[in-house]
Amino acid sequence: MLILGIDPGTAITGYGLVEENERGELRNVAHGVIETPAGLPMAERLQMLYQELTDLLLLYRPGSGAVEKLFFRRNVTTAISVGQARGVILLAMVQNGVKMKEYTPMQIKQAVTGWGGAAKGQVQEMVRALLDLDEIPKPDDAADALAVAICHIHSRAYNQLLDS
Amino acid sequence: MLILGIDPGTAITGYGLVEENERGELRNVAHGVIETPAGLPMAERLQMLYQELTDLLLLYRPGSGAVEKLFFRRNVTTAISVGQARGVILLAMVQNGVKMKEYTPMQIKQAVTGWGGAAKGQVQEMVRALLDLDEIPKPDDAADALAVAICHIHSRAYNQLLDS
Repeated sequence: MLILGIDPGTAITGYGLVEENERGELRNVAHGVIETPAGLPMAERLQMLYQELTDLLLLYRPGSGAVEKLFFRRNVTTAISVGQARGVILLAMVQNGVKMKEYTPMQIKQAVTGWGGAAKGQVQEMVRALLDLDEIPKPDDAADALAVAICHIHSRAYNQLLDS
Repeated sequence: MLILGIDPGTAITGYGLVEENERGELRNVAHGVIETPAGLPMAERLQMLYQELTDLLLLYRPGSGAVEKLFFRRNVTTAISVGQARGVILLAMVQNGVKMKEYTPMQIKQAVTGWGGAAKGQVQEMVRALLDLDEIPKPDDAADALAVAICHIHSRAYNQLLDS
């Protein structure tokens, strides 16, 4: 099954598509970022994000999705801004029949490296190794999105037990 | 011109449609709330909000829209949640060619009652009087949305000067 991982933001949203074969091996299908120009009104930036994500969903038709659950201790303005991006991301997913799970940063680190306190560089190196890539995926938002997808795949068996 | 005012939220979003005639008189065209069941997954609630707002936009075809700019000093989780609702609201508006302005609670109170420190009840009573209604519109979220629309109408001449 093909899994879409998302690292959401209004300025830059990372995405990563990871496929797991029958032997449990992971493959990088695509990764990248959706960027929207800071100079545009917010509504137009959200429309660009929504449209580009919808195009990705129609192109790759992932079976399931996962998004990083973000925490903002400091900046409520940032929380509203990222919330707006998450809103249109969730909408695009549900409109295309893609169910989405949320994972905390600690869950993602735990699932990818085996340790919830792993450093960002360790997570990225494990993403590279698990997907058998020559180099760490760039930019960081795309690598983070691949980590979310891998986390979802590693958690899926457990989720299926809970859902049944 | 017909103006759509919005008081956003995931659980309940108020809307109010106000028309201004050539003599500057205001008329209540419609008001109400879009509610989404708390038991549903967030993505499905956002889809309901998006679809019902899109239906309203297609039915009434407002010329312009306005939304209350919210501040959260305490609860970042609420900020993300309202941000998600705002995201799909902004998306529905831009997809239907409706430009939207934001107003702070103080601007709305100032525009409706003439005083930025007015109490909620005073704002609601002025909404009732300005729209020549027998009773204060219910529920509160709908009355608040009408106040946002009235604020936008009262600010429009000034906005047009700024935009030109």
